[in-house]
Amino acid sequence: MTGNTSETAALDGAALPQQDIRRVRSNPDFWYPVAWSRELRRGKAIGVRYAGQPIVVVRPDAGAIFALDDVCPHRQIPLSKGEVCGDFVRCAYHGLKYSRRGQCFSPGMKLEKEPPRLRTWPCREKDGLIFVFMGDLEKSDSVPLPDFPRARDPHYRTRRFGKVVQCHYSFMHENLMDMNHQVLHSRLVGSMKPRFLGMERGKDFVEARYTFARTAGRQPLSEALIYGQRRKDGRDFAYRDVMTIRTQYPYQTLRIETEGIDEPVMELWIAYVPQDREEFINRVFGLLSIRRLKIPFLLDLAWPLLIAFTERVFTEDREIVELEQQAWREQDGDRNQEVFPVIMALRQLLIQNGMPSQKDVG
Amino acid sequence: MTGNTSETAALDGAALPQQDIRRVRSNPDFWYPVAWSRELRRGKAIGVRYAGQPIVVVRPDAGAIFALDDVCPHRQIPLSKGEVCGDFVRCAYHGLKYSRRGQCFSPGMKLEKEPPRLRTWPCREKDGLIFVFMGDLEKSDSVPLPDFPRARDPHYRTRRFGKVVQCHYSFMHENLMDMNHQVLHSRLVGSMKPRFLGMERGKDFVEARYTFARTAGRQPLSEALIYGQRRKDGRDFAYRDVMTIRTQYPYQTLRIETEGIDEPVMELWIAYVPQDREEFINRVFGLLSIRRLKIPFLLDLAWPLLIAFTERVFTEDREIVELEQQAWREQDGDRNQEVFPVIMALRQLLIQNGMPSQKDVG
Amino acid sequence: MTGNTSETAALDGAALPQQDIRRVRSNPDFWYPVAWSRELRRGKAIGVRYAGQPIVVVRPDAGAIFALDDVCPHRQIPLSKGEVCGDFVRCAYHGLKYSRRGQCFSPGMKLEKEPPRLRTWPCREKDGLIFVFMGDLEKSDSVPLPDFPRARDPHYRTRRFGKVVQCHYSFMHENLMDMNHQVLHSRLVGSMKPRFLGMERGKDFVEARYTFARTAGRQPLSEALIYGQRRKDGRDFAYRDVMTIRTQYPYQTLRIETEGIDEPVMELWIAYVPQDREEFINRVFGLLSIRRLKIPFLLDLAWPLLIAFTERVFTEDREIVELEQQAWREQDGDRNQEVFPVIMALRQLLIQNGMPSQKDVG
Repeated sequence: MTGNTSETAALDGAALPQQDIRRVRSNPDFWYPVAWSRELRRGKAIGVRYAGQPIVVVRPDAGAIFALDDVCPHRQIPLSKGEVCGDFVRCAYHGLKYSRRGQCFSPGMKLEKEPPRLRTWPCREKDGLIFVFMGDLEKSDSVPLPDFPRARDPHYRTRRFGKVVQCHYSFMHENLMDMNHQVLHSRLVGSMKPRFLGMERGKDFVEARYTFARTAGRQPLSEALIYGQRRKDGRDFAYRDVMTIRTQYPYQTLRIETEGIDEPVMELWIAYVPQDREEFINRVFGLLSIRRLKIPFLLDLAWPLLIAFTERVFTEDREIVELEQQAWREQDGDRNQEVFPVIMALRQLLIQNGMPSQKDVG
Repeated sequence: MTGNTSETAALDGAALPQQDIRRVRSNPDFWYPVAWSRELRRGKAIGVRYAGQPIVVVRPDAGAIFALDDVCPHRQIPLSKGEVCGDFVRCAYHGLKYSRRGQCFSPGMKLEKEPPRLRTWPCREKDGLIFVFMGDLEKSDSVPLPDFPRARDPHYRTRRFGKVVQCHYSFMHENLMDMNHQVLHSRLVGSMKPRFLGMERGKDFVEARYTFARTAGRQPLSEALIYGQRRKDGRDFAYRDVMTIRTQYPYQTLRIETEGIDEPVMELWIAYVPQDREEFINRVFGLLSIRRLKIPFLLDLAWPLLIAFTERVFTEDREIVELEQQAWREQDGDRNQEVFPVIMALRQLLIQNGMPSQKDVG
Repeated sequence: MTGNTSETAALDGAALPQQDIRRVRSNPDFWYPVAWSRELRRGKAIGVRYAGQPIVVVRPDAGAIFALDDVCPHRQIPLSKGEVCGDFVRCAYHGLKYSRRGQCFSPGMKLEKEPPRLRTWPCREKDGLIFVFMGDLEKSDSVPLPDFPRARDPHYRTRRFGKVVQCHYSFMHENLMDMNHQVLHSRLVGSMKPRFLGMERGKDFVEARYTFARTAGRQPLSEALIYGQRRKDGRDFAYRDVMTIRTQYPYQTLRIETEGIDEPVMELWIAYVPQDREEFINRVFGLLSIRRLKIPFLLDLAWPLLIAFTERVFTEDREIVELEQQAWREQDGDRNQEVFPVIMALRQLLIQNGMPSQKDVG
């Protein structure tokens, strides 16, 4: 948290890069999740993408997973269409086999020259997620993997979720960070009035804090299960609960803390992984950890309800960010008139930590 | 009807603008229908298009409808995805509200600067149609709304119909105006021979008159209901009925008159409203008024039959004009070898009253 | 078979044209099949394509078929959407009729100038296939139609098959010619080891010979029906059967001969006809002739099984060549690292006998 500025720090508009934020490419010098561990069974391969680059992740018959370019150099067939044989992945077409080091073996083919070695990518598995590192390979050892202590904490129950969303990852960051969009979820959560408590920012993060007051409508049961039962003072959890949202580039977290309990009642970690070359499609990987209640198993009983609730909130958010992306396309660029200091700081962060688009570099 | 020329007036080919008629944009200085009144219930908003411009038409809880740009200036979400609250339309995302004058109210958002006022568009409702005026706003008061006296005439029954057709509006005008395409409908109407009676043209209209002789096949019942029963002289309604088709820019009408009856047996008013920016998709709004027969309720009894008949004629026409548009695309421009003077006059009219495409202007 | 070189002839890499093979257009100076005879009943017309050119083939009420441009010059509607009237094809829209010589007749239309004559194309029918010649018309008489004696031979049963495949025709030639892709079909045929016996090549052909050894798995029944029953020596049909694959531009054949039988047990003739202008879609026309067995009717009994087997092999091949085309698109050009001399010779053949793409000519 070096280089913080207070929330009242003026945003220097003149310093803002003259870039369309929706063209800013994600910075590859980070560990990005590309699949859930459960998607890749032993002896299988899976084809995934990061920013248009096809990668095959292989779980060999024994040992750790590995990742290669998902293209057989011979005829360009994705290796993920083939099969895993022992510690090799075999191309579906002519049967060329590749090792975890990308070396080619070509049984039964009289090749005059060998196809070159395939590119390999650093690949790690942690807490049910498979990560790859697609940037400067020398940095892969020094850049830390994200950590999810709550996923291993028996006081929490963790849900893994995610969908493919047809928009630039920046819309996702803005959506979660800007709590002034409660009207979007009013059918699900009733009428909520956010109160912005302040912002912190640094070179590689922006953090905003809010509290909420219920202005109308009944508290949904699923919400009560997270925050505890409805307050009798009629002002709900205003002044009691604080929501903290943080973009620590390139990831995002959301934490809810309530009075009188030391640990957060809820923690969310989320990553938006660009799928296509233009980065107009992202795959979401989210871990949502909810603190278990004092009555044992109550959270487990309520779990299906909670899943349905978060699914519906997520669906509404997805629809709105996809509408934003469509508008961007139709208007041929970013026409946002953003005025909320938190979002203006967030946009600056994403631009400064991301990669300029080739169009802008031109 | 100033500046008429007789039907024998030579078409000065040299004077024809060197423009691809399928690239001519519609002239916005007219009232265009954008929706049926029945599509927009009280307290609701609807998103429509004119030539690629998204418009939200709002029917507030009380009072007349109004039209705004269908884009919230804040984040570009279509306002038509939101809700109507009293006399305001509210954006689905952050809840910004806009009045019928386009003023923004932003409850619950601490905005440092206000989003600018939204553009408003003249919007009127008449005879079940909602019209907007998207051109030079100073002209909106002097340009008259189309009028449909037959729709209010108890001697007629009027059907409102329309579909989206995937072609430039000029194909629609040509299709209705050129009665030499009876072969297209021969399965429905039998073999009909058109006889061209003459043409009138002016600065802003082209009008053609035809009569028809049945050369083979039986008269369909639905046709008999419009024209009266089959003639016994074996020559059907040749020499008795006259069909007049008129493009009065930008609308089109068709009128059938028959001997011995003062008022037309049928009148059609139709508008083709470009939906997309390129104007290769149009939405049809048609009012078809048929004179009630002497036997009361006979037309009402036959109504479902008549609807099925006109639907099928319309479907055949739609298929053929969409094939024309496809051919235009494939051949990368207009390759028509038009020889019929009426259609040549009509093309000239549409070019001279329309707007040059940006491509041609370039 | 002039200008043959032995299989050991060095491929002069330097002499290889610097062309992307997937952009090489097919040479139109050949007879290409465009439809099966059974698709075109008497008194009907059918719309087909060769390399993006739309053609209508007409089977008039009497006499031989004929082929015209599938575009009415008046309004560009495909004539194949119309009807056949006697010896004419009539446009669906305005009823203009065209003769087999492309002359226009316009009943009922008062045209001031006639539309020009339509282009006609040489068109022949043979052994259940309809061919057109779209190249230099002076060559159409001297260029021979392909011949299929097996299709008329009572000792063989012939299957006609074909599908539309979303790839450049060159991928199809390579797929059939390169027998090193047995791994692709291993689920269907078990584990087969190809042994390359040699290659011949000339100005307009490449021919490769293989034999096979079964290395694992059981011989499928359908295969046994073609080759005869399983050998007891455990080495299957290695050293006994020879498969000869030949691209005689622009067609391809495959022949299987076995020891002790004079005539081939199987013969395949196949053509890949580009459908679109870019030639990234081809329609396959294949004739597969299988020698009848000594026990009468046994082949007929096994026929459905044989069809299912070849369908599944064809489906696997189609999937893989479509993946190759997708990779070509994504990588924006040919990145193949081909090392097999047969395929290198084949690529050279297809480039030298095909037409340079307009892009490369630039």
